[in-house]
Amino acid sequence: MARTTGSDGEKTEAAIREAAINLIARFGYEAVSMRQLAAEVGVQAAALYRYFPNKEDLLFTLMREHMEGLQAAWIQVRPTGSDPRARLAAFVRNHIRFHVERRHSTHVSNMELRSLSHDNLTHILRLRTAYEKELRQILRDGADARAFVVDDIGLTAIAIIQMITGVIVWFRPDERLSVAEVAETYLAMTMRLTGAESPREVQHVHAHA
Amino acid sequence: MARTTGSDGEKTEAAIREAAINLIARFGYEAVSMRQLAAEVGVQAAALYRYFPNKEDLLFTLMREHMEGLQAAWIQVRPTGSDPRARLAAFVRNHIRFHVERRHSTHVSNMELRSLSHDNLTHILRLRTAYEKELRQILRDGADARAFVVDDIGLTAIAIIQMITGVIVWFRPDERLSVAEVAETYLAMTMRLTGAESPREVQHVHAHA
Repeated sequence: MARTTGSDGEKTEAAIREAAINLIARFGYEAVSMRQLAAEVGVQAAALYRYFPNKEDLLFTLMREHMEGLQAAWIQVRPTGSDPRARLAAFVRNHIRFHVERRHSTHVSNMELRSLSHDNLTHILRLRTAYEKELRQILRDGADARAFVVDDIGLTAIAIIQMITGVIVWFRPDERLSVAEVAETYLAMTMRLTGAESPREVQHVHAHA
Repeated sequence: MARTTGSDGEKTEAAIREAAINLIARFGYEAVSMRQLAAEVGVQAAALYRYFPNKEDLLFTLMREHMEGLQAAWIQVRPTGSDPRARLAAFVRNHIRFHVERRHSTHVSNMELRSLSHDNLTHILRLRTAYEKELRQILRDGADARAFVVDDIGLTAIAIIQMITGVIVWFRPDERLSVAEVAETYLAMTMRLTGAESPREVQHVHAHA
């Protein structure tokens, strides 16, 4: 990818990315033209092509960087210990925090797989699989250690990811709950879903059953 | 809405709906033109307008009928008894079956809220709220009866709906699992998520903890 050095070039490139994410999230990839994007950023269409050779390259870059950023964020907070409960909690908290901060980018990443060429789609799906694999490993380790009850590792990983990604559909900052509170509520649901409540919490269920 | 009587008119209208759902799911609402849709169906653009006065009316009709169909399907299978576990199970099974049979329509309904005018959006959101209310009532009754453990009724309802709707993203018929098997796996996760396992299943968790 062409990259103009210096702060003006970097600012323009960042502005293109942000405008592209917002326009695609609002209208869909197919409906957004490079001309419209250039107008939104306030540059000539020709300038756009210095940064992104074509529209699909731009989409691919946005989706690739979203997934690479998610994986990098997870690697940074991934616990070094082996406790599956602590690892699952870290995964859920990181996933929710990352996506709430990138609502439009998440929307684009989830919707526009349909718009990628075969090779680019394969690349993005490989990044997704690598990320999901992290969660599957946590679930498998938890099931092996009898800390979790998981019927189907793959389905459970997908179900958890879709449930916790769904936060972005309805959650807005400044509403009745903070990001941290929402994350803790979803974490509690995830822990129950995987049968990973602490014994005391399970006792609590019994006491009220 | 104009409706031509007789089987040719009904067939044309059904063909328009199906083509519209497929095109919008593939390219997004903004990118699909009435001209393109007419060509797909094999009619003149003028014929389209006899059925749908404009493109947004068509989108609104598709989204309204999706939600009305979902609510009607649920009313038909909704248990008459008061057992929250049986009601939750019926809700999950119906929701998954309905959406798996209407993947593209579900995709359009979830994505294109952004493309509705204010009044149409309000109408669709009201239908969604009415449907979610059915699940919230089940969760509330289950929590009141100490059958479920639910921290936040609203968040739990949204989380469950997003988790079980997510089946359409990855599930394809003829893969390793049938619709019924997928529904049962998701039902088991939902039951754990709401703390609604039978005492025997909770004992099972204890025995292995």
